[in-house]
Amino acid sequence: MAIKTAEQYYESLKDLHPTAYILGQKVENVHEHPLIKHMTAAVARTYELENDPEGKKHLVTNSKLINEEVSRFVSFYESPDDLLAKVRMLKFIAQRIGGCYMRCTGMDGLNSVAIEVYNCDQKHGTKYWDRLMNFVKLVQSNDLVVFSGVTDVKGDRALRPSQQKDPDMYLHIVDKNNDGIVVRGAKIHQTGSLCAHWGLIIPTREMREADKDYAVCFAVPTDVEGLVHIYGRGTLESRAIEGCDLGNVEFSKFAPILIFNDVFVPWENVFLCGEHEYAGDMVRNFGNYHRHSHGGCKCGVGDILIGAAATAADYNGLPNVSHINNKLAEMLKVTEAIYGCSVAASVESTTTPSGIYNVDPVLSNTSKLYEGKELAEVIRMMVEIAGGMVADIPSDKDFANPEIGPWLHKYLKGVDNVSTEDRVRIFRLIEKLAFESRDIVSNIHGAGSPETHRMTILRNANIAAKKKLAKNLAGIKEE
Amino acid sequence: MAIKTAEQYYESLKDLHPTAYILGQKVENVHEHPLIKHMTAAVARTYELENDPEGKKHLVTNSKLINEEVSRFVSFYESPDDLLAKVRMLKFIAQRIGGCYMRCTGMDGLNSVAIEVYNCDQKHGTKYWDRLMNFVKLVQSNDLVVFSGVTDVKGDRALRPSQQKDPDMYLHIVDKNNDGIVVRGAKIHQTGSLCAHWGLIIPTREMREADKDYAVCFAVPTDVEGLVHIYGRGTLESRAIEGCDLGNVEFSKFAPILIFNDVFVPWENVFLCGEHEYAGDMVRNFGNYHRHSHGGCKCGVGDILIGAAATAADYNGLPNVSHINNKLAEMLKVTEAIYGCSVAASVESTTTPSGIYNVDPVLSNTSKLYEGKELAEVIRMMVEIAGGMVADIPSDKDFANPEIGPWLHKYLKGVDNVSTEDRVRIFRLIEKLAFESRDIVSNIHGAGSPETHRMTILRNANIAAKKKLAKNLAGIKEE
Amino acid sequence: MAIKTAEQYYESLKDLHPTAYILGQKVENVHEHPLIKHMTAAVARTYELENDPEGKKHLVTNSKLINEEVSRFVSFYESPDDLLAKVRMLKFIAQRIGGCYMRCTGMDGLNSVAIEVYNCDQKHGTKYWDRLMNFVKLVQSNDLVVFSGVTDVKGDRALRPSQQKDPDMYLHIVDKNNDGIVVRGAKIHQTGSLCAHWGLIIPTREMREADKDYAVCFAVPTDVEGLVHIYGRGTLESRAIEGCDLGNVEFSKFAPILIFNDVFVPWENVFLCGEHEYAGDMVRNFGNYHRHSHGGCKCGVGDILIGAAATAADYNGLPNVSHINNKLAEMLKVTEAIYGCSVAASVESTTTPSGIYNVDPVLSNTSKLYEGKELAEVIRMMVEIAGGMVADIPSDKDFANPEIGPWLHKYLKGVDNVSTEDRVRIFRLIEKLAFESRDIVSNIHGAGSPETHRMTILRNANIAAKKKLAKNLAGIKEE
Amino acid sequence: MAIKTAEQYYESLKDLHPTAYILGQKVENVHEHPLIKHMTAAVARTYELENDPEGKKHLVTNSKLINEEVSRFVSFYESPDDLLAKVRMLKFIAQRIGGCYMRCTGMDGLNSVAIEVYNCDQKHGTKYWDRLMNFVKLVQSNDLVVFSGVTDVKGDRALRPSQQKDPDMYLHIVDKNNDGIVVRGAKIHQTGSLCAHWGLIIPTREMREADKDYAVCFAVPTDVEGLVHIYGRGTLESRAIEGCDLGNVEFSKFAPILIFNDVFVPWENVFLCGEHEYAGDMVRNFGNYHRHSHGGCKCGVGDILIGAAATAADYNGLPNVSHINNKLAEMLKVTEAIYGCSVAASVESTTTPSGIYNVDPVLSNTSKLYEGKELAEVIRMMVEIAGGMVADIPSDKDFANPEIGPWLHKYLKGVDNVSTEDRVRIFRLIEKLAFESRDIVSNIHGAGSPETHRMTILRNANIAAKKKLAKNLAGIKEE
Repeated sequence: MAIKTAEQYYESLKDLHPTAYILGQKVENVHEHPLIKHMTAAVARTYELENDPEGKKHLVTNSKLINEEVSRFVSFYESPDDLLAKVRMLKFIAQRIGGCYMRCTGMDGLNSVAIEVYNCDQKHGTKYWDRLMNFVKLVQSNDLVVFSGVTDVKGDRALRPSQQKDPDMYLHIVDKNNDGIVVRGAKIHQTGSLCAHWGLIIPTREMREADKDYAVCFAVPTDVEGLVHIYGRGTLESRAIEGCDLGNVEFSKFAPILIFNDVFVPWENVFLCGEHEYAGDMVRNFGNYHRHSHGGCKCGVGDILIGAAATAADYNGLPNVSHINNKLAEMLKVTEAIYGCSVAASVESTTTPSGIYNVDPVLSNTSKLYEGKELAEVIRMMVEIAGGMVADIPSDKDFANPEIGPWLHKYLKGVDNVSTEDRVRIFRLIEKLAFESRDIVSNIHGAGSPETHRMTILRNANIAAKKKLAKNLAGIKEE
Repeated sequence: MAIKTAEQYYESLKDLHPTAYILGQKVENVHEHPLIKHMTAAVARTYELENDPEGKKHLVTNSKLINEEVSRFVSFYESPDDLLAKVRMLKFIAQRIGGCYMRCTGMDGLNSVAIEVYNCDQKHGTKYWDRLMNFVKLVQSNDLVVFSGVTDVKGDRALRPSQQKDPDMYLHIVDKNNDGIVVRGAKIHQTGSLCAHWGLIIPTREMREADKDYAVCFAVPTDVEGLVHIYGRGTLESRAIEGCDLGNVEFSKFAPILIFNDVFVPWENVFLCGEHEYAGDMVRNFGNYHRHSHGGCKCGVGDILIGAAATAADYNGLPNVSHINNKLAEMLKVTEAIYGCSVAASVESTTTPSGIYNVDPVLSNTSKLYEGKELAEVIRMMVEIAGGMVADIPSDKDFANPEIGPWLHKYLKGVDNVSTEDRVRIFRLIEKLAFESRDIVSNIHGAGSPETHRMTILRNANIAAKKKLAKNLAGIKEE
Repeated sequence: MAIKTAEQYYESLKDLHPTAYILGQKVENVHEHPLIKHMTAAVARTYELENDPEGKKHLVTNSKLINEEVSRFVSFYESPDDLLAKVRMLKFIAQRIGGCYMRCTGMDGLNSVAIEVYNCDQKHGTKYWDRLMNFVKLVQSNDLVVFSGVTDVKGDRALRPSQQKDPDMYLHIVDKNNDGIVVRGAKIHQTGSLCAHWGLIIPTREMREADKDYAVCFAVPTDVEGLVHIYGRGTLESRAIEGCDLGNVEFSKFAPILIFNDVFVPWENVFLCGEHEYAGDMVRNFGNYHRHSHGGCKCGVGDILIGAAATAADYNGLPNVSHINNKLAEMLKVTEAIYGCSVAASVESTTTPSGIYNVDPVLSNTSKLYEGKELAEVIRMMVEIAGGMVADIPSDKDFANPEIGPWLHKYLKGVDNVSTEDRVRIFRLIEKLAFESRDIVSNIHGAGSPETHRMTILRNANIAAKKKLAKNLAGIKEE
Repeated sequence: MAIKTAEQYYESLKDLHPTAYILGQKVENVHEHPLIKHMTAAVARTYELENDPEGKKHLVTNSKLINEEVSRFVSFYESPDDLLAKVRMLKFIAQRIGGCYMRCTGMDGLNSVAIEVYNCDQKHGTKYWDRLMNFVKLVQSNDLVVFSGVTDVKGDRALRPSQQKDPDMYLHIVDKNNDGIVVRGAKIHQTGSLCAHWGLIIPTREMREADKDYAVCFAVPTDVEGLVHIYGRGTLESRAIEGCDLGNVEFSKFAPILIFNDVFVPWENVFLCGEHEYAGDMVRNFGNYHRHSHGGCKCGVGDILIGAAATAADYNGLPNVSHINNKLAEMLKVTEAIYGCSVAASVESTTTPSGIYNVDPVLSNTSKLYEGKELAEVIRMMVEIAGGMVADIPSDKDFANPEIGPWLHKYLKGVDNVSTEDRVRIFRLIEKLAFESRDIVSNIHGAGSPETHRMTILRNANIAAKKKLAKNLAGIKEE
């Protein structure tokens, strides 16, 4: 059963009973809650695609570990081609979901952690690699969904973890015993945590000796005792709750804050515990991988932005207008650059002692910088092309009202051969694409903020070599 | 009573009984509806400011027409200084409201219409000027709120009004008799129509002979028989309905679609009726004036964007960071350019036969182009500075829940001297500023779309004169 | 003779005998040198315009000081209208010269210095104001050209003047006696120093107690003993030397480095001497004024960029193409914003104790930031519109060669009704506009660098007030 | 001798006697002319690198055609890896030359032509493929330099070739006989034509039946009778002529216009002759390949821009300043995106019937669009970082003058440990990088203009598929 069906995925969720709160209410059967089910549907779609002839080419690979076909979402990046296949897979799926499907944080996290636990074992004689491989075998054999829990709440940003007034502002070890460790803290922006079976918890930054209790990496089931998921409110909840005006009729996103109230983790699931020098590289690996992932999925979402804008233009009666074509070309320019840099970051990847390949950090961060800065402009252009109706089209409920529905059908019609219903649908989709806060903010802050990307580029770009090249051409001799 | 108080404004609304539908429901006492009252509050705030010592300097002027102090919102632009005072007033108010307060469309509309009815009277011997002055006297004497209804639904954008399959896609005259005219059609994106006493209806584009029934301008009370306001759904309704997570705790915006079901207008309120050659100039005047208005109010909103971002940085513990300062300077650059070009468009305004001054169209459209393209980047920078919590901070309802509230208070704390409540408030405000669809789309499409602004700039920029200057310098002699 | 003619200006230069070196050669009669005369011609043009009916409206004003009509270039900014008139004048002239005409640094310098000597006299009981007024009377009565010498060579930028290893890296006082002072140092980028009668030397930065010998301001004739002008090489000298392929057939720019080899300055021409607390404000005033000046002249140059691009498009046979019109509109957007912000900086100017008006620093620096960043894009668009011939069109010498000239005339023809000569002329003008290094670098670094503009904006923008406005709207109470 | 040395290259030029005019003079021994030799040196450098251990890895490959090691510059793209190797090679060389080395137009041209002659032979039974292979064997065996002559002078851009008043505005066949064809016309912007052994002449646009005499492709030696090279004047000739102030001390660029005065071409060197339907694809192939080439070389040049800026910052005393680091990161972002998209265009290449691989056109044109628009901003940032001395530093001749040289050495010193000479050298290099017109205009217009790139992107991007994806998500069913 290394490849699950969507039905099996849904079935598997029934065994999980996470503690969850949504908009102030404790919720049972959370996977069916209207604010959760659209993302669960997106995850389920990935399982469908694993079983689909075309999808399978993208989503399924072989595992040396269990000698079986497994989901690429739970596999290792063992070559540049694996990284390339990842980017293409994420684009392929995003074109079919139009947003997040929550399985790449786990994939990126497993690889990020594996590289460093290998290094740590080499230096410290720890046994993290074997533990991690056992965990991966479990995950691969059961085609599980794993989310990576990276971002701590961070308190005062100017202070390191050990300097915070409240020591819990970064997740840390509060106790250790023969059986395992106890951790406390909170991880925020945990996209899709309630659709996952397990969470892989990773330090959010580099740590020093003083911060060593914060240098901790481990896996927990999403319903482990002491773990509380609190729904993070975005902009468009009411639509899913009311069941209308959805825009994207099937899929959506959520991102809770997770509270770890002295959660116990048995040693077998602990992959770093105080070896602080690996914390920074773990999260830097994760950042680079995850920016690389965005290069795929955000280009796929970009195709939806472009397709939606072009459809709106058609429906408005402006199918082939020079300035609109110009904007579509500019939209393509940005989304293809985001994609192209991720492809190139795969091609220019390099191996690590663990055998896992690391993406080229300059190119993967370049991809993300374009996303962070330019994707907002792509979205703005979509809205510009679509026109003002994105702002304020009446609700499906108005259309359903017998007194005013007919007027709305009459007056909101565009070109002759397209129904008002379809025209409204495309405006609703554009509204969703432009105004769902978790998606839009993820373009900017997902996988780190633009300043982090700039620093990573600078740190990895070998400016010294470039200075030398320039001096050579200028005729400057260096002693 | 040429200057009303806020109380008098609220009182005056009680006499109005507009037909209104919100999210599928017919609504009585619509002015108190949670989705309407935040904008009514914004309008009321303008009345408060008319009666405030500092505010009065900006909001009150003298009317030659009624020889009294009147609200600048119902006055004519009789000098460059009047236009300058308008820009400064709008910035001043926007800084205090953080969004739309719905009284400038009426002000811009009255001036736009007046210029052309004067011209029309000169040519056609019509008596529109006197009718309009009578209407303005009523408005000034009672300090009324007037919205301008400009944007038609437009059907197939490639077709002119008279070419549409359904002749009602642009508002038009369906009947005329001794007493007045009967009109049918729909006007969309009617910001704040339910907070106004009257609407001034203006053609949405230039008209030709064949379109002359569409060349119609008139005023109607907002509760005239046959007029239906249907609430246009934006992104954040649920907040106002639930009464929490508001962001901007007092003020908000809405923009209905208005259906004119054979509405009767007596002649005394008709200001254009078939003289099609003035339709285009009316709406072009309006566009230029209203882009000029945006230069004021959007700079004021920009001050809020900048202030909110800087506050979030403080609360995060990053009060004086180089890259954040750089972004704040870039945000200022854009908002000040938007403002500066509107100021300049005032200074370089020119008079018309009516005595009313027209703004410089190149400068006012330049202001709006920066708004349309660059304000989105200002907002993106605000989100970048504020950080990921803009995306998904839990609800006030979660904070109120006794089980999880304490955890949220603990974990969402930033710097030591700021309460978690205040930190959450600033993120909510930023969410509102970044994701309220009607505000954001108005940056792009309000007062016409960027392509219109570009065309207006080109049409008014005298490229021929610039070619001549260039040829002179190149030594090219023209015969 | 408070208004000179061009002939009188040329005549007056004959009395000046500055020490000048050009490309390694000492040069006599420097004003007639091919690398100098094109800028002298630009200055002469300003005198012509002072005597031209249309030009006079812009260039001539009244002096309270000498009770006569004087050139606006040697007048004080005594009202917002004076500042507005300056911006309009500079645009008007730049449209006719297509580049620099070298008289605004003096105008801006005199005003900058005057404000602070007034302040200094108030505090220290010095008599600088009277001295300065005597100097200004001389300048006004004789309609002299004054350049302002601001930028020092600066040595190691990380060190203050008094910290430099070589104390001469900033100009300073090396001796004082009863008659006057002796100064040493170098000022670089001295646009048009050889076309001026006098130089007004101003500190380049704020100074502290330790730097007080560097806090010096004074005037000297351009041929004062010990002052050496060394021509700063730009990109296109060979054209002027060969007398062909000029592009701009009459006018050009140069910017020497000036070496002050122990130059003596009598007390009557010394306007600051050690009162270090005024040095910073002098140069800040100058920066703000000069950025304001750029808002005028660079918009005028922008009109040439736009006119040249539009002419090239005509000549190529592409007179009305959608994407070219779009680019022309974008070019206008930038140049009008630069202008508009300078106009607004005039309108929002404020008075100083001296009675001289200071421009609004946020708006004038915003104008310059757009110039520094966006004017490069305007130039790029000009080149994009014009096409590849800007890169490498053969020389006038090739056209003059009887063997190949006819082929070039044949093959470089564009549309039918335009001669090949004229087509080549417009490409040459565009080449000049795009590739004359002193002009282009001035867009970026003239009147300070973009980082300075950002810092100035931030320092003057009252971020604290904006935070307060944001907090009010968010419902945050401040104690 | 399939791999030549630099000496052999220089030797081989001695057998060529092209007819050449430079700045109005007919020139013998043109390869040694000061305006030509710097580019000849760049070409020679590529031969050196072919014989260098590290360079060889990039520049040498195997030819199936002659079964030998050959220069990659004369090889076919037979796999995605070949295309990838090309991009990397071009970046590698550009880092060492800082500009153009003139061998990629031939490489791109040969591949472009080969694809279509194969197609043409299949359809028309022509024998072009065999002829072309014979030509390529000659080129490979002798490691020759081939330039591609693509761009016609074009006359009135609104008219097709056959519509021009002068039929010679596009190169065309004027006679045919048993031995070959006779052609007339002119090709402009022929980078490095005088450093090449042969030219491969390719149609500049798609052709219709009426234009079939213009559908001609052939090879000629650069000194063929009737072919005249006329030097196209750029901005910085005087430096090379004077032999000082070079900036890039070894290498430079030139781009003549070539006049074909009834040049005879024997049939064996004719590769298209009237089969007009292949003209368009030939040049489109060329465009896509050459934009892909730019992705490599312009990233290499970008490394020089970045290295030069960083060096100037060091020399100014500002080695680690936040805003400079930010700009360096932005410069990297652009150059890496240009490179990354070219890498990705290789990876996503597809085969053609000829067995030659075509790059992905969307990605290669995206790369070029970033170059065309954003590289100008990279250059602007370099100038911003370097400071104002880029504009107008005195000449080497001034430094050599014993009177003023010592002052310049004194005053133009930056940080303590760097000589003034080296500081001046880096400013000169930056001047060259920012102001050499042929390089800068090539960023915009080389390999077609931005509008062409946009159109190519749009034509190849499958907007219809993207619309379908968007409709699926919106719930729009298509019949």
